[in-house]
Amino acid sequence: MPRLTTALTELLGIEHPILLAPMAKISGGRLAAAVSEAGGLGLLGGGYAEADWIDPAFRDAGNGRIGIGFITWALDARPDSLTRALAHRPAAVMLSFGDPAPYAPAIKQAGATLICQVQRLDEAQRAVALGADVIVAQGQDAGGHGRLGRGTLAFVRAAAEALPVPVVAAGGIGDGRGLAAALMLGAAGVLMGTRFYAAEEAIAPAPVKQALVEGRGDDTVFGGVFDRLRGPAWPAPFAGRSLANALTERWGGREQELVGDLLEAERAAYRAADQAGDMGRKVVWAGEVVDMIERSDPAATIVRRTVAEAVEALSGAARFLTA
Amino acid sequence: MPRLTTALTELLGIEHPILLAPMAKISGGRLAAAVSEAGGLGLLGGGYAEADWIDPAFRDAGNGRIGIGFITWALDARPDSLTRALAHRPAAVMLSFGDPAPYAPAIKQAGATLICQVQRLDEAQRAVALGADVIVAQGQDAGGHGRLGRGTLAFVRAAAEALPVPVVAAGGIGDGRGLAAALMLGAAGVLMGTRFYAAEEAIAPAPVKQALVEGRGDDTVFGGVFDRLRGPAWPAPFAGRSLANALTERWGGREQELVGDLLEAERAAYRAADQAGDMGRKVVWAGEVVDMIERSDPAATIVRRTVAEAVEALSGAARFLTA
Repeated sequence: MPRLTTALTELLGIEHPILLAPMAKISGGRLAAAVSEAGGLGLLGGGYAEADWIDPAFRDAGNGRIGIGFITWALDARPDSLTRALAHRPAAVMLSFGDPAPYAPAIKQAGATLICQVQRLDEAQRAVALGADVIVAQGQDAGGHGRLGRGTLAFVRAAAEALPVPVVAAGGIGDGRGLAAALMLGAAGVLMGTRFYAAEEAIAPAPVKQALVEGRGDDTVFGGVFDRLRGPAWPAPFAGRSLANALTERWGGREQELVGDLLEAERAAYRAADQAGDMGRKVVWAGEVVDMIERSDPAATIVRRTVAEAVEALSGAARFLTA
Repeated sequence: MPRLTTALTELLGIEHPILLAPMAKISGGRLAAAVSEAGGLGLLGGGYAEADWIDPAFRDAGNGRIGIGFITWALDARPDSLTRALAHRPAAVMLSFGDPAPYAPAIKQAGATLICQVQRLDEAQRAVALGADVIVAQGQDAGGHGRLGRGTLAFVRAAAEALPVPVVAAGGIGDGRGLAAALMLGAAGVLMGTRFYAAEEAIAPAPVKQALVEGRGDDTVFGGVFDRLRGPAWPAPFAGRSLANALTERWGGREQELVGDLLEAERAAYRAADQAGDMGRKVVWAGEVVDMIERSDPAATIVRRTVAEAVEALSGAARFLTA
C-alpha cells in the first residue's frame, strides 16, 4: 500500500497522517494500539485524568508505540496523572480544553511530541508560543466536546496558513476524501474521533456503535445537556456534540433550568436510563461525519480504507485540470 | 491559464467552477458580470425580491451571461419578481432559505439552471426531487444568512456522496486551496460570498470592505441581532454570521429582549449608526474566511488567483504519495 507522507508523518515517525482522537473512556489500549499498528498514531483517551485508568490502558496497548491525550482542565485537578503517563514514555501527549502552559515543559522534557488541540486561531498561536509541536485545529463539526465558533474547513485553512508547525484537521473528517481535503487546505494530517468510536476495538457497547451507524449528520446537536445530567460539569465555553435524542429535545438550550431538586431527579433518571441502555436517552457523542459511517470495522480496516481513498483522490486530482 | 473542469462547469458552460454568492444588495450587475467574464458564474443578489432592483441590475451587467439568486421566503411575497428576472433569460436561478417547490417549474421551463442552496441533507434530497440541477451545500462557516447546524466540510462530503447532481460547497471557502479541498470532498465547485464582498465591484462602502480585510475568523458571530435591529425579520431557523461588534456583544443571545419601546429605540439608534457609517455598530456580514482576505481586489483577480492556487494544489497533490 502506498504511504502518505507529510510534515506530520515525518515529525511523529508514522506511516500515515491519521491520529486517533483521545476519546475519554473510549480510546483504550486496544484501539490505540490498533491505529498505531496500522500506520497511524493511537492516542489513549486519558480524558479526566483518573490515575487508575492510565497504567491499565498502556498495558492493554502492549508494546505499541502510542500517545495519550488529556482534558487539560481536568488535569489541573490531577496533575500527577501526567507524571504517571510520562513514565510510559508516550510518543506524544495531546492537551485539549484548557491552558497547556503548566504541562508543556514536562511533556517536552520527557521527549514526547506536544500536541495541542485548539478551537480558535489565537489559542493556536499561543500554544505554538508555549512549544506545541503540532496543532490540532478542531472545528465545531466535531463530535464530543468542543466549542461553537470555528468551522473545520475555514479554521484549518487559516491555521495552516498562519502557523509554523504541522496542523492537524479535526471535526467532520471520517474518510479518505476528508483526509485529501485536509491536505489540500494545507493541513498535515487528520484526527478522527467519531469514525473510530464506531471501531470494533473502541470501548463502547454495541448499541452505541449501532447508533453511530444509523445516525445522520442532520441530527447531531451541540450543547451542555449531558454535561449537566451525567457530569462531570465542563467549564464554559465548552460543550459537546451528540446525536439528538429525547433529552436534547427536551432540555437543549434550557440547561440552566436544570437546578435543585429538578436537577437531582433528572440526574437519577439519566443514570437509570444509561444503565438500562435506553438509547432514546443515553448520550451518544457524535460528529457530523456519522453520515459516512456504515458499519463497525476493525480500526486497521478504517485506517487502510481511509488511506486508500485519500490516495485515490489525490492521485486523480490532476484530472480536473484542462490546459 | 489552465481551466478546472468539473460536472458543474460542463453543466453551466463556464470555464471555472466558481460561483458568486447572490448577496442581497451587494452582488450587483458589475460584480456578477466581472465574475462571469473571468470564467466563473456571477449571480445577482436578487435578495428580498424587490422588483425595482432587478432590471437595473441586469442592465448593469451589460450583455454578460449571468444568473440571479433569491431569498425564497421573500419571493413568496413578491412572486412577480421571478417572472421579471426570467424575462432577462438568466443562465441560472438560485433559491435559498425556503421552499423551492412553487418556483422550480417556471425556472426550468425558462431554460435556466435551477440551483438550490440548502443547509441540511434532507433538504438537499427534497430539492433534487423537485428538480434542482445543482445543490449548494451551505455550512455554518458561511457569512451572511444561513442556519446553524451543518459544518461545511462534513456536510459537503455527505451531500456529494448522497446526491445525483453536482454539489457546490459554500461557507468558509475563499481561496484556491479551499476550492481544491471542495473538489477532493466530491463537490463540483464552490460558491464564494465573503471573498467577493470585499471585491472592488461589490456594492459596499469602502469602510465595510476594509472591515473585511481587517476582520478575523475568530471574531465572527452567528445570530439574529441585526435582523432584529435593521430588519427585515427572518423566519426561524435562519439568522446570519457577521463580524462581532458592540451590538452583537450587547444583544447576542438576548435578541428576544428587544421588544416594544426598547426595540423602537434601538432600531432608531441602529439607523443613525448605519447612516453615520459607525463601524463599531454597523452590520458587516462575514464568514470565517475573512482570515484569508488581505485586500480588496477586482473580481477577475480573485477568480484568477483562486484558480491558479487550486491548480497548484491539485497539480501537487500526488506529492504526498510515497510508494
